[in-house]
Amino acid sequence: MSIELAQDAMVPGIEGFRFAGIASGIKKNGQPDLGLIAASEGPVAAAAVLTRNLVRAAPVEITQKRLAASRGRLSAILVNSGNANACTGAAGREQALQASKAVALALGVRDALLVPASTGVIGAVLPGAKIASAAPALVAALREDGASDFARAIMTTDQWRKVAVATFAVGHRTVTVLGIAKGAGMIHPDMATTLGFVLTDAAATPSELRAILKRATDATFNAISVDGDTSTNDTLVLAASGASGARGGKKLERAVTDVLGALAESIVRDGEGAQHVVRIEVSGLATDLDARKAARTIATSPLVKTALHGRDANWGRILAAAGRSGVRFDPARARIAIGGERIVEGGVPVGAEAEARAAAVMAGPRYTIEVSLGRGRGRAHYLTCDLGTEYIAVNANYRS
Amino acid sequence: MSIELAQDAMVPGIEGFRFAGIASGIKKNGQPDLGLIAASEGPVAAAAVLTRNLVRAAPVEITQKRLAASRGRLSAILVNSGNANACTGAAGREQALQASKAVALALGVRDALLVPASTGVIGAVLPGAKIASAAPALVAALREDGASDFARAIMTTDQWRKVAVATFAVGHRTVTVLGIAKGAGMIHPDMATTLGFVLTDAAATPSELRAILKRATDATFNAISVDGDTSTNDTLVLAASGASGARGGKKLERAVTDVLGALAESIVRDGEGAQHVVRIEVSGLATDLDARKAARTIATSPLVKTALHGRDANWGRILAAAGRSGVRFDPARARIAIGGERIVEGGVPVGAEAEARAAAVMAGPRYTIEVSLGRGRGRAHYLTCDLGTEYIAVNANYRS
Repeated sequence: MSIELAQDAMVPGIEGFRFAGIASGIKKNGQPDLGLIAASEGPVAAAAVLTRNLVRAAPVEITQKRLAASRGRLSAILVNSGNANACTGAAGREQALQASKAVALALGVRDALLVPASTGVIGAVLPGAKIASAAPALVAALREDGASDFARAIMTTDQWRKVAVATFAVGHRTVTVLGIAKGAGMIHPDMATTLGFVLTDAAATPSELRAILKRATDATFNAISVDGDTSTNDTLVLAASGASGARGGKKLERAVTDVLGALAESIVRDGEGAQHVVRIEVSGLATDLDARKAARTIATSPLVKTALHGRDANWGRILAAAGRSGVRFDPARARIAIGGERIVEGGVPVGAEAEARAAAVMAGPRYTIEVSLGRGRGRAHYLTCDLGTEYIAVNANYRS
Repeated sequence: MSIELAQDAMVPGIEGFRFAGIASGIKKNGQPDLGLIAASEGPVAAAAVLTRNLVRAAPVEITQKRLAASRGRLSAILVNSGNANACTGAAGREQALQASKAVALALGVRDALLVPASTGVIGAVLPGAKIASAAPALVAALREDGASDFARAIMTTDQWRKVAVATFAVGHRTVTVLGIAKGAGMIHPDMATTLGFVLTDAAATPSELRAILKRATDATFNAISVDGDTSTNDTLVLAASGASGARGGKKLERAVTDVLGALAESIVRDGEGAQHVVRIEVSGLATDLDARKAARTIATSPLVKTALHGRDANWGRILAAAGRSGVRFDPARARIAIGGERIVEGGVPVGAEAEARAAAVMAGPRYTIEVSLGRGRGRAHYLTCDLGTEYIAVNANYRS
């Protein structure tokens, strides 16, 4: 299988889908802010993973209802940046419906088969009329090779487009998985809204897609932490056109996981404040769930993250974070290694020389911290980044 | 009832206890690092609250075992700073026992009735021999008015001593509650170790003290958040000499709570990086436990805390933090006020003018954010502080 992060002009098309991205005036600076993905040959199978935050934006509610009503079918995905349409009550819902109705009409599909997503400022009602006015131009801009425009239009504080492509063979046929995401890790979270759209020309049923998306998300987007906050708008959609004529099976799940993994890492890396992307691997606990809890607590600890920023092999903070995570283990069995350098053995430090070698590893942009907490078979990983002063500077002044 | 934070020379004594604080050479810079509290007239009733971190320092294990074996009696409390004796295995345990044996011998009490506490660097074995050598001088330094010396000796990165005193009358008798703590909030957490010792000359049984300490701790020390990390060494001890001849009852619980509350706020305020101490009050949920969950999630959210630093009335981050806290509520009923200025009503923003007034409140050193999430009777509060760049600067370089 081949997997790559596609930049700018290198974004390929994918059979069965067309893309557009234009400026509709939602963003005051005139940047692109409206994107559309349209299924070329009628409704396709789809699944979605939506934010677990109890406070959910209007488009999240609409997407959930529509995919439930259509039993996992969609004709189009409409995404705007510049306005999250969250905490906007009945007015926000109405504007989202107006926008989706106008675009569905221009596209010639039922609006019940169009799923919306929004990202940007929260607490401001979506200007549905602006999107309605732009609908004909948006539909006219649809192109098979328009994925790069779409990726540009959904960016908020992102520094670069996030597109990943995987291909694999099924017999003599080639199947493609194309993923497009937005979200900037460290210094520009603004509720850290993550949107992701993964398309494939493989054939799959909606229930197959739901199962694939759930497992792939747990291993990727649900295992990254920038600051522990969860957006009101997080949305991941997986859609399959079947245009390749091949069923994907296990290979499809692998490709979707790889594409989401590449996008997740790109999100964590996108932020001037994040100098180090760090993989936390926890093993030796009773269950995978326990390992996940411990890994998450380590990955979100401010004390651990500031130590990563300072390139300090501060194993005490790592061990103490595991200790307060709520899982059972014997601290006297703990082992910790950074970039393969063992710094804790049997719960006590190996020594200053080992810590110096580990600190040298921590100067790099990417490394792994292995935390073994016993003899159990439970294991999990989490992707995190360091917590630096730029995070504070930008987040303290985000709205001003 | 009178309650005050006592500074420096103003620290009073309390009947039934003597105090000492000296330098024993644990701290390389020669600062005081060894403190002792001794019961003047034989063992007194006591209770302790210890860290819930699974990774617990040697002195925490010893204190728990000894108070269990003595059924809540102690003759002395021995505290060192400069070394936490955490993650030090069997060697650390042995050194802690050696130190406590030497001090108990010099004091003429059974070492099973001495409880130890340690704070400082973790991963380094306690130098028990240094404490043993200093034991005679430590005991010789015991004075009824030595509480200020004791408070000084247990400081690590604290900028000031933390002592609070409450007095109240029972009939014609005056009862005193004296609390001494260490712990520096924002910029110097070093695992945020908190030690607290509360003494009273009221009469109370160990089981009464346990009940009082648990409730008082939940309302104070367990409701402050600096960075969400829990130390391996946290220890709170409450001891009652009975020397006043009065039983404290409900008044005693109130006084202990007030003393712990004053100490807790002093801890949060102790840090150059923390410019604002903010009380998060959550109400309207089904249960107090739910309210506590929501308050804690808001109080520990990096996005909320950086907004506090930037004096930004960013209600969206507050609402979204409540939304991901795992409790049920209807976002359409949410109301948020900052310093009494209502900025969210029925889940949607009141307007820019209200937010500007709230931002003016946020310039102050201390204010309250009220978050009402429905019609339930559950309520809770949490004390937190803003997250500024100095936190990062100090924590990234703490060990270097």
